[in-house]
Amino acid sequence: MARDLDRTDPLAGLRDRFVLPEGVIYLDGNSLGPLAKAARVRIADVVEREWGRGLIRSWNDAHWIEAPQRVGDKIAHLIGARPGEVVVADSTSVNLHKLLVAALRAQTGRATILTETGNFPTDLYVAHGAAAAVAGARVKAVDPAALETAIDGDTAVVLVTHVHYKSADRRDMAGLTAAAHRAGALILWDLSHSAGAVPLDLAGSEADLAVGCGYKFLNGGPGAPAFLFVAERHHASLSPALTGWMGHAAPFDFSDDWRPAEGISRFLTGTPPILGLAGLEAGVDLSLEVDQTALSRKAEDLWNLFAQLMETRLASQGFSLLTARDPVQRGSHIAYAHPEGFRIMQALIACGVIGDFREPDVVRFGLTPLYLSFEDIWRAVEVLAGIMAGGAWRQAQARIPGQVT
Amino acid sequence: MARDLDRTDPLAGLRDRFVLPEGVIYLDGNSLGPLAKAARVRIADVVEREWGRGLIRSWNDAHWIEAPQRVGDKIAHLIGARPGEVVVADSTSVNLHKLLVAALRAQTGRATILTETGNFPTDLYVAHGAAAAVAGARVKAVDPAALETAIDGDTAVVLVTHVHYKSADRRDMAGLTAAAHRAGALILWDLSHSAGAVPLDLAGSEADLAVGCGYKFLNGGPGAPAFLFVAERHHASLSPALTGWMGHAAPFDFSDDWRPAEGISRFLTGTPPILGLAGLEAGVDLSLEVDQTALSRKAEDLWNLFAQLMETRLASQGFSLLTARDPVQRGSHIAYAHPEGFRIMQALIACGVIGDFREPDVVRFGLTPLYLSFEDIWRAVEVLAGIMAGGAWRQAQARIPGQVT
Repeated sequence: MARDLDRTDPLAGLRDRFVLPEGVIYLDGNSLGPLAKAARVRIADVVEREWGRGLIRSWNDAHWIEAPQRVGDKIAHLIGARPGEVVVADSTSVNLHKLLVAALRAQTGRATILTETGNFPTDLYVAHGAAAAVAGARVKAVDPAALETAIDGDTAVVLVTHVHYKSADRRDMAGLTAAAHRAGALILWDLSHSAGAVPLDLAGSEADLAVGCGYKFLNGGPGAPAFLFVAERHHASLSPALTGWMGHAAPFDFSDDWRPAEGISRFLTGTPPILGLAGLEAGVDLSLEVDQTALSRKAEDLWNLFAQLMETRLASQGFSLLTARDPVQRGSHIAYAHPEGFRIMQALIACGVIGDFREPDVVRFGLTPLYLSFEDIWRAVEVLAGIMAGGAWRQAQARIPGQVT
Repeated sequence: MARDLDRTDPLAGLRDRFVLPEGVIYLDGNSLGPLAKAARVRIADVVEREWGRGLIRSWNDAHWIEAPQRVGDKIAHLIGARPGEVVVADSTSVNLHKLLVAALRAQTGRATILTETGNFPTDLYVAHGAAAAVAGARVKAVDPAALETAIDGDTAVVLVTHVHYKSADRRDMAGLTAAAHRAGALILWDLSHSAGAVPLDLAGSEADLAVGCGYKFLNGGPGAPAFLFVAERHHASLSPALTGWMGHAAPFDFSDDWRPAEGISRFLTGTPPILGLAGLEAGVDLSLEVDQTALSRKAEDLWNLFAQLMETRLASQGFSLLTARDPVQRGSHIAYAHPEGFRIMQALIACGVIGDFREPDVVRFGLTPLYLSFEDIWRAVEVLAGIMAGGAWRQAQARIPGQVT
C-alpha cells in the first residue's frame, strides 16, 4: 500500500535532491533538516570561489552584503509576508530578544510579555532577559489554553509559538492575532516549527512580528542563521535593541552617531554569517520550487499513514498520541508519550530510524514531505513494532545528562 | 633585498597552507583573512560527513555541541587567557552588547560606559544600545588621548579597542587595565584587530572582559562567529543579558525556569553556527602551530620594509603615515592618509594589490606574517609607485554609496 502511494506521489522526485545516508530513515528534519545536494554545491562555491579567490571583493562582487535581505525576501515568499519584511540574522534567540525589547519599548503604558508555560524553553528564557532590559517590564506565562483570555490592557506583546515543538499543536494565527489586536497588544509568532512545514500567511493574518529557525524545515544546515519578520507598518516605530553596524543607515560611512537604517535592515546587528547564509539560501530555494498545496497534501497523507499504522501495529504498546488529528490544528511532526520513551528512541536510532526524544516522555517523528516516502513511514513503524515486540529497547541506555536529545 | 629576506624567513613555508589567488597581493587580511587549505577540507567534511551522513547525531558524535567551548579554549591559548575563559558565539556586536549590559548591571552605583570617539563604529552603536537596556546608564565618549584621565567614580566599564581599526594604534593593555581598576571600573577590550596579529596576555594584564572577531587575523571565513572573554573571577557575578537556551545550566532538560550555566557557557545564547565554527577552528589551529615570537618578529620586519619603501619610492606623493613606528604601539597593519585615498585604492585593487579604504581619506594595508612574503611587500609598493607616477588612479571611479570599502 505504501509503495502504491509512492508510485502516484507527484513529489517523489524531490528525494533525489537530498543527500540521505544509506540505511537511515530520517524522521528528525524538524530538529535538523538534511543536506540538499544544492547546498553542498553552493557552500563549496562560497568557500572556493567567493572566499578563496574573491577574498574581500566578494562582499560586493558576490553580493554577500545583500544576503540577509535577499534570503529574507525568499523566506518572506514562503511564509506569506511581503518583500522587505523579513531579514536573516543571528539566532532565533537573539532575534527574539531584539523584537521583544523593541515591542516593549514601543507599547507605552503596557509592561507585560504574555506567553505560555511549556513553550520552547529558549522563548521563556529570552522573554525574561528581554523584560530585564526594559524598566518595569515583566513576563507572565499562563497555561496555553488560557492564553487568549489572559490578554489584557497591560499586555505589550503576546509571545506564542505557532506549532508547538513537542506536541505539534498549531495555533490559529489569524484568530489569535485578532484577539491580541482587539486588546491593543502586539503579537510575536515563533515560526521555528512552522516555516517550510505548514502553510503560512503572515500578511493575511495581520501578524506583527515573527522569528523562525533556519536549520529545521528550511534545511539550512547546523546552526544556520535565523530570520525575523516585522510587518511594514511597524518599521518606523520599532527601534532595535541591538544596535550594531549592519543596522545603521550607512554602515560604511563609519560615523560615530547611530542612525537606524530604513525598513527591516535596522534589525541587523553584526556582520552576516556568509557560510550559514549560503546553506540556508540553497535550502530555501529548494522549498520555493515546490507547489505548496501538493506539499501540504502529502504532509497530511504521511501523517495519516503513520498514525494509522501506529494504531494497527502498536495499539497495546503504551504510546499515547499527543498531536491533534485535525490537520489544521497541527504541524508536520507527530508526537507520542511513552513512559520508556527515551530508551525506545535510543533503540530506534540504533536501528537507523532517527526521531528524537523530548523530556519527560515524548518521542517525536518529523514527517516532512520533501524527502520522505510512504515506504519510509511504513518501514519506520515496522522497525518500532519489532523493537517493542522483541524488547530490544530494554538494552538501550538511560539518558546521559547534557546529551543532545 | 626582499628576496633575500624571504630566503631566510623561517615562516616562509606557511604561505603554502593558504589558498591565495594568482595575480593578487592580499593586504586585507585585517578585514577578511584568506582561506586556509585546512579550512576548505574541514568545512567540506562538516558538510558531507557530519551534516550529510551524521545528521542530527553529529551534535553528539561529531562534538558539535562542545564546539563553542572547544574553539574558545583554543583562542584562549592564543590571547593569553585561561581555559574556560573564552567562548565562541554570535557576532562581535552581539557579544559586546551581552558583556556591556552584564558589566553595567554588576557595577552597582556606577552608570557610565566610558569609550573613545572614533572607535570602530559598531562599538559606539552597541554601547548606546546597551546603555538603553539598563536604567540610568549612559555612554560617555571622549577623545582617545583623554580616555585614561576620564575614568572616574561613575565609570562602570571602559570600552576600548586594543588595536585601532584605522590607525593601527595599539593601547597598553596592562597599563590601562590597571588605571581602570584603580578607579573601581571594569575594562572591556575589543580585540578584533589584535587577536592573531599581536602578542596578547589577557591573564597577565588582568583584563576583565574582551570580545574579538573570527574573520580577520584568525582567518575563520566571511562572517565567522566572534568570541568573548570573561575573566574567571567575574563568572559568578556577571549575568548575561541575552538569556538563551545554550546558556542554560541544563539546556536539554527543557525546563521553563532560567538557570544560568556555570562558567563561561552562560554567555552563550542560541544554537551554535557549526559551519562558521568549522572554518574558525581550522584558522585558529593554524595560528596555534606557529611560534608567536617568530611571528611577531616577521610582522615587524614586513612593516618596516613597507614603511621604508614608501619613504624611498613615494616620498613626494602626499601619503601621511598614520601608524606609530614603535612596534609596541601598533598592530600589524599600516595606514596612510591621502586626499585621493579612495581612488588610489580602487586603482591598486584593479592592479591586484588588495588593501582597503576607510573614511574619510585612509588607505590601509594589512601586513600579516602568516602568508605574506617580503617580495609581496616590495611588489605592492612598486605597483603603488607606478600608479602614482602614471596617474592611473585618476581613471578610478569615486565611491559608490553603500559599497563595502
